[in-house]
Order: sequence, then C-alpha cells, then structure tokens
Amino acid sequence: MKSTVQKNSQTGVAVVHTRTLAGAEKCLPLPGAELGSEHEAREEQSTMTDYKTNLRVKLPATCIVLEVIIIILFATLVEYDHDTDAKHWHEEMSKHNKSNYENEFYFRYPSFQDVHVMIFIGFGFLMTFLQRYGFSSVGFNFLIAAFSLQWATLMQGFFHGMSEGNGKIHIGVESMINADFCTGSVLISFGAVLGKTSPVQLLVMAVFEVALFAINEFILLSALGARDAGGSMTIHTFGAYFGLMVARVLYRPHLDKSKDKNSSVYHSDLFAMIGTIYLWMFWPSFNSAVTAHGDDQHRTAMNTYYSLAACTLATYGFSALVSPEGKLDMVHIQNAALAGGVAVGTAGEMMLTPFGSMIVGFLAGTISTLGFKYLSPVLEEKLRIQDTCGVHNLHGMPGVLGAIVGAITAAAATREIYGEGMEDVFPDVHSNNITASMQGVRQAISLAVTLGIALLGGLIVGFILKLPIYGSPPDTICFEDGIYWEVPGEEGAHEEMTTVAVEDVEKPLNG
Amino acid sequence: MKSTVQKNSQTGVAVVHTRTLAGAEKCLPLPGAELGSEHEAREEQSTMTDYKTNLRVKLPATCIVLEVIIIILFATLVEYDHDTDAKHWHEEMSKHNKSNYENEFYFRYPSFQDVHVMIFIGFGFLMTFLQRYGFSSVGFNFLIAAFSLQWATLMQGFFHGMSEGNGKIHIGVESMINADFCTGSVLISFGAVLGKTSPVQLLVMAVFEVALFAINEFILLSALGARDAGGSMTIHTFGAYFGLMVARVLYRPHLDKSKDKNSSVYHSDLFAMIGTIYLWMFWPSFNSAVTAHGDDQHRTAMNTYYSLAACTLATYGFSALVSPEGKLDMVHIQNAALAGGVAVGTAGEMMLTPFGSMIVGFLAGTISTLGFKYLSPVLEEKLRIQDTCGVHNLHGMPGVLGAIVGAITAAAATREIYGEGMEDVFPDVHSNNITASMQGVRQAISLAVTLGIALLGGLIVGFILKLPIYGSPPDTICFEDGIYWEVPGEEGAHEEMTTVAVEDVEKPLNG
Amino acid sequence: MKSTVQKNSQTGVAVVHTRTLAGAEKCLPLPGAELGSEHEAREEQSTMTDYKTNLRVKLPATCIVLEVIIIILFATLVEYDHDTDAKHWHEEMSKHNKSNYENEFYFRYPSFQDVHVMIFIGFGFLMTFLQRYGFSSVGFNFLIAAFSLQWATLMQGFFHGMSEGNGKIHIGVESMINADFCTGSVLISFGAVLGKTSPVQLLVMAVFEVALFAINEFILLSALGARDAGGSMTIHTFGAYFGLMVARVLYRPHLDKSKDKNSSVYHSDLFAMIGTIYLWMFWPSFNSAVTAHGDDQHRTAMNTYYSLAACTLATYGFSALVSPEGKLDMVHIQNAALAGGVAVGTAGEMMLTPFGSMIVGFLAGTISTLGFKYLSPVLEEKLRIQDTCGVHNLHGMPGVLGAIVGAITAAAATREIYGEGMEDVFPDVHSNNITASMQGVRQAISLAVTLGIALLGGLIVGFILKLPIYGSPPDTICFEDGIYWEVPGEEGAHEEMTTVAVEDVEKPLNG
Repeated sequence: MKSTVQKNSQTGVAVVHTRTLAGAEKCLPLPGAELGSEHEAREEQSTMTDYKTNLRVKLPATCIVLEVIIIILFATLVEYDHDTDAKHWHEEMSKHNKSNYENEFYFRYPSFQDVHVMIFIGFGFLMTFLQRYGFSSVGFNFLIAAFSLQWATLMQGFFHGMSEGNGKIHIGVESMINADFCTGSVLISFGAVLGKTSPVQLLVMAVFEVALFAINEFILLSALGARDAGGSMTIHTFGAYFGLMVARVLYRPHLDKSKDKNSSVYHSDLFAMIGTIYLWMFWPSFNSAVTAHGDDQHRTAMNTYYSLAACTLATYGFSALVSPEGKLDMVHIQNAALAGGVAVGTAGEMMLTPFGSMIVGFLAGTISTLGFKYLSPVLEEKLRIQDTCGVHNLHGMPGVLGAIVGAITAAAATREIYGEGMEDVFPDVHSNNITASMQGVRQAISLAVTLGIALLGGLIVGFILKLPIYGSPPDTICFEDGIYWEVPGEEGAHEEMTTVAVEDVEKPLNG
Repeated sequence: MKSTVQKNSQTGVAVVHTRTLAGAEKCLPLPGAELGSEHEAREEQSTMTDYKTNLRVKLPATCIVLEVIIIILFATLVEYDHDTDAKHWHEEMSKHNKSNYENEFYFRYPSFQDVHVMIFIGFGFLMTFLQRYGFSSVGFNFLIAAFSLQWATLMQGFFHGMSEGNGKIHIGVESMINADFCTGSVLISFGAVLGKTSPVQLLVMAVFEVALFAINEFILLSALGARDAGGSMTIHTFGAYFGLMVARVLYRPHLDKSKDKNSSVYHSDLFAMIGTIYLWMFWPSFNSAVTAHGDDQHRTAMNTYYSLAACTLATYGFSALVSPEGKLDMVHIQNAALAGGVAVGTAGEMMLTPFGSMIVGFLAGTISTLGFKYLSPVLEEKLRIQDTCGVHNLHGMPGVLGAIVGAITAAAATREIYGEGMEDVFPDVHSNNITASMQGVRQAISLAVTLGIALLGGLIVGFILKLPIYGSPPDTICFEDGIYWEVPGEEGAHEEMTTVAVEDVEKPLNG
Repeated sequence: MKSTVQKNSQTGVAVVHTRTLAGAEKCLPLPGAELGSEHEAREEQSTMTDYKTNLRVKLPATCIVLEVIIIILFATLVEYDHDTDAKHWHEEMSKHNKSNYENEFYFRYPSFQDVHVMIFIGFGFLMTFLQRYGFSSVGFNFLIAAFSLQWATLMQGFFHGMSEGNGKIHIGVESMINADFCTGSVLISFGAVLGKTSPVQLLVMAVFEVALFAINEFILLSALGARDAGGSMTIHTFGAYFGLMVARVLYRPHLDKSKDKNSSVYHSDLFAMIGTIYLWMFWPSFNSAVTAHGDDQHRTAMNTYYSLAACTLATYGFSALVSPEGKLDMVHIQNAALAGGVAVGTAGEMMLTPFGSMIVGFLAGTISTLGFKYLSPVLEEKLRIQDTCGVHNLHGMPGVLGAIVGAITAAAATREIYGEGMEDVFPDVHSNNITASMQGVRQAISLAVTLGIALLGGLIVGFILKLPIYGSPPDTICFEDGIYWEVPGEEGAHEEMTTVAVEDVEKPLNG
C-alpha cells in the first residue's frame, strides 16, 4: 500500500519528463525499468531541444523562400481567366450575348467550397486520432495544403494551361478545384508518414509530389485521353502508393519506442470523426466538382452518394465481424466507410447506375476494413511499410478498384445508353475516334502508368527525404506535438496522471 | 489523512472495473458499499462480454442482409430521373431548348449539402453530450442514417415515384433531399432511445419507421394535399412521437443504475455544441430545400433565419430565468434554441412575414425551454417515458406548434397577398378547387393523422424492439460506448482518477 | 515524499473550491500561501453565487425586452423585397420576362451560408481556446450574434433601405448577408473583451455597436462612395478599434488574479482550430458575398483564396522564427493565418491580380504574427489594453493594411484594365464623375472616418459598459464558465487533479 503511494509520486516525477515512461513501464514492469526509463526520459528531454530538431532557421527559410518563388512565378506567368477578368468577361457577355449566371463561378463554386472543406477540415481532423499529435495533424495539414494549392496552380497550369497558348496560365474556379485536388493527393501521402516527419520534410515532399502529380495527370487526361473526374487514379492511387513508397524508404526499425503515443484517446477519436463525416458528406461534391455541366455533375454526385451509403453498411458489418467480441473499431469507421467515395472516383460520372454504385461501394468498404485488420500488419512486418493512417486501405486498394471499375464501365458504354450525353463523358468515343472498349483500355493503361510514376517517384523522393537535414524527429518522440509545437502544460500533465493511475490499479489485478 | 490515501488507492483499484462505482459510492457512502459495488463491478464486467450483447453475428448479418436486399431492389426498381440520365437530359435540352443551368442540380444541390450536414454532423454531434457515449452517438447516427437514406429512397419512391408510371422509381437531387428528410425523422426517434439500444435494434427500428414515414408523408402530401415543406408534421412531429412511444414501451425501471453515465462532461458539451450550431445555421436550407423555385425557396430560408434568431433570445432568457442562480443550462442552449426551425417547418414557405416568423420562433424557444425544465421530469416519472435527448421539447411540441401555425397561415391566405405566387404555395386554392380555409382544415387533419400514425406505429414497433434478441445493453451499462465499441484505455482511466479525486476531497467537506 | 502526499490531499481539498488555487500556489509556493488561497477560494466561492453576478433577472429581462422591441419594429417597418415576396416576384417575372434562376437567391445564398458558418462556428470556436471558457465563447457568441443580426437588419435597413422610399425596409438574402457582416464586427469586439464581460454587458455593447456600424457603413458606402465589399474598413477596422477602446475603458488592474485561467489546454486549442479553419476556408465567400454578379464574385473569391494561402506560409515561417526553440505557437496559427482574408477585404473585388493578393496576404501574416509576439505585450503594459484574443493583430492592423491597399489599387484603376467591368467596381469612375485617383482619396478618407467613429464610439460605449449594473465577473473569476453556466462536475474536478499533479512533480525538479 505505502509502496504504491511512493511509486505513485515517483512515477509522477518521472512521467512529467515524457509520456513514454508509462509505456516503457508497461513493457518492462520492473523497478529497474523506472530508472532506465527515467534516464531515457532525460535523454529525450535533451533531444527535445536538440539542434537537430530545432527548426528556428529551417522552417522560416523554407516557408519564406518557397512563397517568394511562388509569388515571382505568379507575377510572370499567371493571369485571370475569361470568367474572372473584368474586361474579358464583359467583352464575352456582350459578344456572345451571355448573362452573368453563365459565369463558371455559379456552376462550380459551391462544389469548390465543399472540396475545400474536405481538404482542410476533412483530411486535417481525420488525422487527429493520435492522442498527442492533434496540433501537428491539423496544423501541418494546414501548412502543406496552403503551400501545395499555390504550387499546384503553377504545375498544373504549366502542363494544362500553357497549351492554351499565349504562354500564360489562366486561372479561375476550375483551376482552384484542380489545385485542391492535387493538394488532396499530397495529404494522402502525408497520412502514410504521419508522426514521423518534420514540417520541413513535408514541404519538400510536397514540392516534388505536386510536380509528379501534374505530370501523371497530364499523361492520363491529356496524352492518354483517360477519364478520371473524381481522381481514383490521379489523386487516390497516386497519393497512396507515392506515400507508401516514401514511408518504406523512411522505415524506422525502432519506431516501437514511440508506440505508446501511436494510438488514440477517447476525445481524439471524436475529433477524428469530424474529419471522417465531412469527407463522407462532401465526397459527392468532390467527384462531381469538375465534371461537365448539367446531368454529369448531377449524376456523379448521386452515384457517389449511394456508393458511400452502401460502403458504410459494409464497414460496420465487417468491423464487428472481425472483432472477437463483436465490437466496432473506430479505425474502421473513420476510414473504411470513406472507401466508397474513392472507388467511384473514375466511374462516378459514367452511367454506372445507382445499384452499380452501391455494389462498388459495398466492395470498397469490405476490402478496406479487411485491409486494416489483416493486410496492414503484414505490410508493416513483411514489407516494412509503417503506414500510420492506413492510406493503403482507404486510398490505395479502393483507388485501384475504382480504376478497374472505371475501365470496365467505359468499355461497356454504348450510344444507346448515353445518347448525346456521350460527348460529355467520352468525347473521343462520341466523335468515333475510338471505340468504347478502346476507351476501357486507355483507362487500364492509365492505372499502370499511375502506379509506375507513383512508386518510382516515391522511391526517389523518399531518398531525398532521408537526408538528415530536415530536423525529423528521433524514434523516441514520434507522434508527439511537443517537439515542434509550444504545447500547453496542464493537459499533458493530466495525461500523465491517468497513465500512472492505470498501472497503480492494474498491478493488484494482475498480481 | 492517511486513511484518505488508503481509500484513494483502494478506490483506484475498484473503479478501474467500471465507472459506475463512483456513482454507487455517492449513493451509499459506506465502506461496505465498496465491496458491494466491487462485486457489482465484476458482474458487469462479465456482462460486458456477455453473449447477449456480443453482436459479432447479429450486426454483420443485419447490415449485410439489409444492404443486399436494398441493392437488389435498386437494381430492379430504380432509374436515373430526367435530370441525371445522360440520354434523357440531352434530349430534353434539345427538345425544350433548355440549357444546363436549368438542371435541377443547380437549384437544389447546395441546399442538399446543407441538409446532409445537418443529418450527419448536426444530429450526430448534438447527441455527443453524453460523457461516455460519443462513439455511439456519432457512430450509430452515421450507421442508421446511411441505411435509412437508401431505404427511404425506395419507400418514398414506391409511394410518390411509382405513381409517375412506367413502374420505376426515378431519382435525382430532390429524391436525395427527401431521403435525407426521412432519415432525419429516424434520427429524432433515435434521440429518444439514445444510450439504451443496440445498433441492431436501431436498424430494425429504422426499417419500420422509414416505411411508416413514407406512408404518413404520402397521405399528407398526396392524399390530403397538405403543405409541409420543412416537415413540422411529417418529420418532427412524426419522428418525436414515434420515438417517444418506442421509449415508453422500452421503459427501464432500473435505468438509474446507469445514471452516473447519463450526463455530460465539459468537453462532451462542447462537442454537442458543434451539432447544435450546424443544425441552427443550416435550418434555413432544410426548410427551403424542396420548396418551389424562386421566391419560395428565398422566402422560406429567410423566415427560418429570423424565427431561429428570435428563438435563441427566448431560449437564453428563459434558461436563466428558470435557474435559481440565473445560470444558463447547456441542455437548453443545445436544444431549445433550435425549436424555431421546427416551428416554421410548415408555414415557412407561406407569406408568414418576418415578424410573424419571429413570434413563432420566440414561442417555440419558450415552450421548449420550459418543457425541459418542467415537463420532461413529469414525462419520466408519471408517463414513464425516458426521453434521453428531450426530443419532445425540441421536436414534439414545436412540431405541433408548427403544424398549427401552418394551418392558420394557410387559412389566412388570399390572392391579394400571394398574387400569381399562390400557384406554387397552394395549387388547389389557386385553381379554385378549394378555399384557403379548407386548406387550413387539411393542414389540421394532417396533424391528427400524423400523431395517430406516429403513436400507433411507435407502439407496435416498440413491442417488436422489446424482443430480447437484439443485444440491447443491461440497465447497468447504458450510455456506455464500451459495450459496443473498442474504447481506448487512457481516457477511460483518467475519468476514474477524476471521479476518485472528487470523493477524496468531498469527504472532508461533507464531514 | 510523505509531505508531498499530505500536500497532495490537502491541495485536493482546497482546489475543489475553485480552480484559481493551483494558480495562486504557483505564484507563492509557500505553505502559508495555501491557507491564504484556501481563504481566497472560499471568498470566491461565495462571489460565485453573489447577487452581483446573478443574472436571473437581468439576462431574461434584457433578452425578452430586446426581442419584443425588435418584433414590434419588424412588424411596422419590414417587408419582403421583390425577390422574396410571392406576388412581386411573379409580377416581375412576367413583366421583365425573367425566370426563377435569376432570383437573387441563387447568386447569393451559397455565399450567405458560408458567411453564416464563419459567424457562428468560425468566431464561436476560434474563441474556445481558453481552457475554462468554451461554453461562454460559443454560447455568448451564439447569443449576441442571434441578437445582432436582427438588430442590424433594422439599423442597416434604416440607413440603406429607407432611402429606397415607401418608408419600408425591404429584406432578402443580400440584407441577410449584410446583417451577418455587421454581426461579425460585433464579434470582433467581443474578442477583445472575452472573459471579462457578462452576457448582459455584451448585449448592451451590441445594441450600440450595431447602430454605430450602420452609421459608419452608410457614411463610407453611400455618402463617400467608397468600395469595401469584404469590409476591411467597415467590419474589421471598425470592430477591432471599437473593441480595443472598450477594453481600454474596462481595463482591470488586478486581472492577473485570473491569469491561470487565461490560457489554453490541449483540447481547447483543437476546438479553436475548428473555428480557425472554417474562417480560413470560407473567407473567399465572405469577401465575395455582396460583390457584383459574374466576374466580380468570381475574382474576389479567387484573390482571397491566394491571399490566405500566402498568409499561411508567412505565419508558419515567422511563428517558428520568433520562438527561441523554433517551435510553432498555436496562437499565431489560430489567428495570424487569417489576416490575409482581412487584408484583401477592400481590394479583393478589384483587379488586384493573383500575385498582388499573395503579396498582401504575405504582409498581413507577417505583421499579424509579429504583432502577437511584440506588440500585444506593449499594448497591455503601456496602453493598458487587455486584448484577450489579440484582435488588434488579426483584425486591427490587417484591416488598416487592407484599407490602404484598397486605396492604392483603386487609384491605379484604368479603363484599359477593367474595360466595361469598371461599372461594377467603380461606378463613379466609369461614369466619369470622378477620376480613379479621386476614388483612392475617397478610400483613404473612409479609413480615417472609420478609425474616428470606432475609437470615439468605443470610448463612449466603454463608459456605458463600466456601470456596475451588468453583473460583470470579479477580477478573480474571469475567463471562467462557472460563473454564468451550469458546468458539469467531473471535468472541472479532473482539471484540478492535473493542476495538482503538475506541482507535485515540478517541485523535485526545481528543487
């Protein structure tokens, strides 16, 4: 009894250094361990303020230099497009007898805002499930997204826009949506390396990934003439496999030193649900944001709506099924329930039919849930891929599924079904340049190209990111805000108290 | 002093079994009680993993069977409508010389997304006020909503759509909004039984409630020719009284065994405010989502906006007034402030005038706040209705008020006021089929019909849900995520610590 | 060791009275201090239920009287405008051969809803960063916003609407947006006095501020013919300097008695990020909500989008730069990252060019971050302005910057650049009434007028608010929900535990 009290206060003294102690204790429940971990604690303490992770010079330099470069490039290359430029729009109105409500803004802006919410709230909060990494999840998501959308405007504009001639990049609401899409891809990769990277490292990753995304997107949509409005291939497959390869190269054999922080607490799981629900609700807007006007946007949104609904039931069903106690797992709900949106990213604009969408969503939810349960452990142990958020299950496999579904649905397209609407969905088939099955082949090739560029690109960028110059965290304090953020004391402290509490009381039970 | 320390650690040992101990102690502050409750604790512990509540077979079976049935029915019965089908839309454009921005999508999709947020974030987070039921509140809300919107598409389509002939159900953005509306009704009923039901039980409830909702809606809008764009009757009155009757049948005499968990903590009340504010902000979109184009949508949104604003001031005023210390009660703010949206659900599209809307909102906020303070306890003690979220105060009474206001406003309609706009709001009055006062009578009859179907339906479905086959929780562990979810440890533990803390320090004060 | 245990439990006894004790202990770590603070604690405890802060009569009276006055004024003065009135809209359609999608609703409602989210979620949650003031931050924000938007409809309608003749105020979606804008200004001032005012005091402040806002807005936009679509001057500069002056008059020399509560905890900072991200995402809608149709709305949204993105990189860069350890500060991220939206509030609708917007955003983020680090302490110590949320850094300086940028951009306007679009942005320049440089002068004068009215108005209203009749909190329990809200017990208690824990363990380290 008395000893408990001593332990209590002693532990109290120790744990305040760092949260890892409690975890360490759990592994080695010996008195000696305490000293060991107290020692370890001090060491980490020093690491905390170590020059290696001090970003006082690196982060400001990176942010400011990148922004200055972007501003210069915008000044020289970027112009308002015809719907945003005061002079041109008014000329267009008088010339083509247009009215203001024909401005692209009214067709796309509501969808843009929904996509915007997915990028900043959806992705940002989805990653707050980690108990001590909420600031970084939302905060780094915010930083790299704000950078990527500017950089993407230039990279995508360079490949797509430039072709339009006069050597300028013309921007408007559609380019804003595409920039957000490209950003989404970077955030997917972020999910794979979450907790193990410094903000500088993430910005450097974004610099390269955005460029590679733009190249891949250009090859698929312009060169190969593939269709991928919702980005099953360009966004999800690319982002996932690029990120997984980076995670592979950045593999940390001793990451288990931080494993007690690589988990959620009650409130952090609720914050994550904010991200999940927003992604789920607005996915119909995501997939339909850049499809053709009229029936295309309408149909794409509806197909996605039903795919997600079916996906959710599959996720709940299989989540309970794979649990011995039949209990639901937040990890599945937070992620697998979204796979239905990923899987109709390509076929959503096609005449997939509502029940077709449901079947795709149901399959996506199933493979995603099973992936979390059975595949992720294998990836980590055998392939040495430490996929923090399980992006392989949410974006990787469902993205590939979506690409395949897209290829099949395209190959099955007939004028009988699409009528004059064929022109919007498959212009080359409509103009008899190619057959529908050829369009299906294009889609299949596009998947292969995407996988190739993503894996190769991730490999190269992974090695660039491995350089010891970005202030990435040591194995002992990954998944920890304290290393890059001023973290308020109390909450941190009370987490200690609770961890301590757990052991004090567990002992008598175990004993 | 020393004894306190001993108690502390001993309690520590005990409380880790289950959170109910602290509560039990408060009731019987005797040393003996600890043993008693420790025993009780073990018993509950076993119940936790009891076969009765283990859903490993039941939940997957229910989810997968229901989804498969839905997919089959969609495959056989559901088709894209004229605005979503590629072929038909393009035919329509060329035939009627329409342009893409006349597609229903652009009139309704932004409203749909707002409604969607209310259903999944609004209802979901509103119910997270319970300290240990956040996963279930958001998670079960998510599950039954995802199911209900699919099922509602079929049920509503069967009654409304089929009539359009060719034996198919045609869907588009408007049917999506109506499906979300029906889902909202199920979620209102969920609020009445929150914390006392298993997910399987909730899905079964949804199966029946959606069907009954569709029947009632068909009788009101099609057979009786009533107007109820925002669903004061069809959604709120129906959902509330159906749920209250179910709660009555499922009455638990010994629910006080879980009463320590049937309350909020600081952060859970903040999560709940996310739900409240979203419901409040988007209610104008909810009420205007399916009204006629043009002035109708515009007017409905504005009437709702002012009704809610007035309702909020009434809620704050009366919340402070009914508190001896003049302190505001989160329960009132989270719920009563929304009653203004419910109460203009029927009359919102009519020429209610802005100040008329404010009067209705002010009344709704008042009766709702007073209902929470004075009526809810009576409902529980006298009528044995354990209404967890107080849906009677937020949806029940304000829904009835809204129906009455609608009947009066309809009866007062004149061509002088509505002009040609009469056709959109009261087509039968416009075509001189009936008088305005007759329309008022229709509205009144509709309220009676709704109450009848809701109460009778709730009674029958209640008994179906009473069967001991759904794995519903025992009285001792209601309002507890742990029974159906994998819950992370720490947070649970620290809640113990805090409860312990409370007593340690309370003792000396009481003594 | 033993002594620690005694301290522990004793403290436990004490802290349960009030959270301030722990803080007090930190200041004077002597055994004597405990008694002192225990005594202080009791005293505060009594203050808690003191008649002075008991709002049981004051708050209900204020809410109900204000609402009744508003309803009477609406009944006598307010009418539906031509787009919301059933009769008028249908007359207009037939007269001018208009169609429903030309109804103002479809041009403005999506933007309105985004603005609405900024007002209620954005501002509300941004202020939840305080550890024990979340209920009040969201709750009082909710209350004063719900009041202000009704009151603003009347005040703005009186100045703008009345002029349109027939002595009535005509309302629709545009007046709803403007009412929300005016509300935003009140909420900015709320940020300056957050935690130190009673809800009654805040409502009284709103009564006066809304009226002054409407006067200033009328002078700027109608009398002076200035342009300020996003409200750099009318909303941000006005709200900030008005609030700062009020805070100056309400200066509390002994506020440090509550300083332990004037800080954040881990979860409260995450809640605040919800507010930040929503403000950031929807700011493009805010600035473009009332600009002219077509290219103007489109361009304004895009300029804001890029300004905010650049601002975010500047904020992260300088936040790390000003920290000795190179760590990011949540205060900067939560606030300074938004300054880019404020700074393009005036020039956003002009042909600012994308890179111009980025430069403005970058500057705004920089001065805002530096302001938090270096200027705020000076304001408090030297000028005695206790600016709780640092509105001077987020709205004050960036607002002035935005006004200056607007003046310069206006002066640089040429027909060469704007073409026929000139009419929408600078009607007087288009009609050759004035030169572009004269328009620039108008803008500059408008800034001076705004500062004058804000400062003078804030001074007068500050003294009105200083009257000891509003039940404002004592210095010892500011930043504390418990004084005006029923706060659930547990969480409060565990916060104690944590605070206690901190010291127990800190002692040995310091020693």
